[in-house]
Amino acid sequence: MTADMINAAFYRGDRTFAVEKTPKTAPQPGEVPIRIAYCGICGTDMHVYHGNMDARVGHNRIVGHEMSGIVAADAEGFAAGQKVVVRPLDHCGDCPACNAGNQHICHNLKFLGLDTDGAMQEIWSVPAHTLHRLPDDMRMDHAALIEPVAVACHDVRLSGLRPGEDVVVIGGGPIGVLVAMVARDTGGKVVISEVNPHRLAIAQKMGFDTINPAETDLKTAIEQRTGGKGAEVVFEVSGTQPGVDAMTQVAATRGRIVMVAIHAQKPQIDLFQFFWRELQLVGVRVYEPEDYEKAIAIIAAGGVDADTFITDISPLSDIQAAFEALDSSPTAMKSLIKVGEDA
Amino acid sequence: MTADMINAAFYRGDRTFAVEKTPKTAPQPGEVPIRIAYCGICGTDMHVYHGNMDARVGHNRIVGHEMSGIVAADAEGFAAGQKVVVRPLDHCGDCPACNAGNQHICHNLKFLGLDTDGAMQEIWSVPAHTLHRLPDDMRMDHAALIEPVAVACHDVRLSGLRPGEDVVVIGGGPIGVLVAMVARDTGGKVVISEVNPHRLAIAQKMGFDTINPAETDLKTAIEQRTGGKGAEVVFEVSGTQPGVDAMTQVAATRGRIVMVAIHAQKPQIDLFQFFWRELQLVGVRVYEPEDYEKAIAIIAAGGVDADTFITDISPLSDIQAAFEALDSSPTAMKSLIKVGEDA
Ligand SMILES: [Zn+2]
Ligand SMILES: [Zn+2]
Ligand SMILES: [Zn+2]
Ligand SMILES: [Zn+2]
Repeated sequence: MTADMINAAFYRGDRTFAVEKTPKTAPQPGEVPIRIAYCGICGTDMHVYHGNMDARVGHNRIVGHEMSGIVAADAEGFAAGQKVVVRPLDHCGDCPACNAGNQHICHNLKFLGLDTDGAMQEIWSVPAHTLHRLPDDMRMDHAALIEPVAVACHDVRLSGLRPGEDVVVIGGGPIGVLVAMVARDTGGKVVISEVNPHRLAIAQKMGFDTINPAETDLKTAIEQRTGGKGAEVVFEVSGTQPGVDAMTQVAATRGRIVMVAIHAQKPQIDLFQFFWRELQLVGVRVYEPEDYEKAIAIIAAGGVDADTFITDISPLSDIQAAFEALDSSPTAMKSLIKVGEDA
Repeated sequence: MTADMINAAFYRGDRTFAVEKTPKTAPQPGEVPIRIAYCGICGTDMHVYHGNMDARVGHNRIVGHEMSGIVAADAEGFAAGQKVVVRPLDHCGDCPACNAGNQHICHNLKFLGLDTDGAMQEIWSVPAHTLHRLPDDMRMDHAALIEPVAVACHDVRLSGLRPGEDVVVIGGGPIGVLVAMVARDTGGKVVISEVNPHRLAIAQKMGFDTINPAETDLKTAIEQRTGGKGAEVVFEVSGTQPGVDAMTQVAATRGRIVMVAIHAQKPQIDLFQFFWRELQLVGVRVYEPEDYEKAIAIIAAGGVDADTFITDISPLSDIQAAFEALDSSPTAMKSLIKVGEDA
């Protein structure tokens, strides 16, 4: 690359990414330039690829937010060479959510990599307040998992999970598996409910107990595991009506059900069970700074089976093929793009 | 009455109560005999009257649990003449809920006055652990409100309501009004949403702001009241799909929605809003001892407008007419039965 041009992947609409040279832009005041190492492909990026978010992102957007990188030049108190990750949330600072201290769900939240250009480019300049420093010895491919692990840390933290409690994760896809890992790391006794045999095999390889509710009655199985008590914490990650039906059946009295999945439809919920057993439903979205610090600590300590979870790494030049492969794979967990030449 | 016979009202099925003489039974070990003063008619008693609970209560049941009374004879450390109320829950002591400290939602809970005979009789013997002592100067008609007020205290406590927070109560019937009173007593800025003009008038008489969502768009009205923020706490007391639709619309970011109503059907819920604004849903059922103590304190301090709330008092001999009148009244809040001759 020339000194003033960098490689970047632009979403061009209609399931198409174009990797092009683009001028390197100088950081704005308050920003820090980051040399991107790796960037994971998120489910949200896949929604962009499918054309479901064209109204929001347009056809000239650089996506990507599950990244790791290195500060490219001294700026805003960050030294060149510092390993970092970006918490890709930019809040307004003056709305009811911000005023209540909930900046991460700001009413005017900008999500970097969707509402602004993102990390699928060699140099990404971001507001300094979005950065978290990494230990010098952290592997940069593993560090690209920090953003999705921070989601899981947020979900588990808001569940109030205490060591020794029983946990059911409904849905064993990439998000469900990370939630299960963080819940296990927190001391929960975790079982994953999943119907896809490929995903069941991966979850088992990661050491999890699993139940296939298409073959085994889930409610009965959880009763047997828990001595009739049920699970103190349930994560609904499936996004399906059967998952919503199951969540109230497997929860213990006063159990906390965490709504991780995004239900675009309005499913039917067994509210009688909420009354009868004083269940709680907890909505969760993205993460707060402490969830990032927790995710960094868990990955640094090996609490996430990163090498099993990362199923594919492709260079930026192959981003189109990487999206196509991920879209058609029944077994993929996390695909990373190696963005920088020297990552 | 003779020394060994007392008056009692038996539910005989088919919307019929029969007031009959019945032998006074001696208290069992651990029980205390209570001379009943007043007993309110609960919505649950009305379900019994309608025949919806015949399988549970049979056709030889003395109902009633919203009572006030006086200890009839020294027993179990209670002195004759002590004013008391009964917290009508008898737990098993050895189930997952009891073991977790949630005796009030014991898996084998017996509700006194449904699963056992209740307070619509002159002398009622109950386990000593169910009793709460009342101040000597408390009016016994007001004291008959302690049980439903304790329900409201439980609901408000589990909402985590803090002084100054905005509260919407969806549904202005007897339970909704009591929830609103306790929420106001706790420092909440309360508005009641209700479509029935009679109930709106009663709520206004009690000093509450009200909104009729059939005439005014509720979401817009709450936004205007709260500067676009929404309500930190929402109580869904209506038991209707429109109420369930409204609850997610009026809640603030990170708002807590308390499910007070019993939804026998499985309504559709806007789970996307739970995700997007990190809403919480809190199931609530009956009460714990501290809720009774709080209810006693609120009533003793005049925090409940008891004289407006009690719309009718009938003698035990007129219990049939009292149920019939309550069943057909659009304006009644709470009907009491004066059980004892000397109450
Ligand atoms: Zn993501
Ligand atoms: Zn904001
Ligand atoms: Zn009641
Ligand atoms: Zn029990």
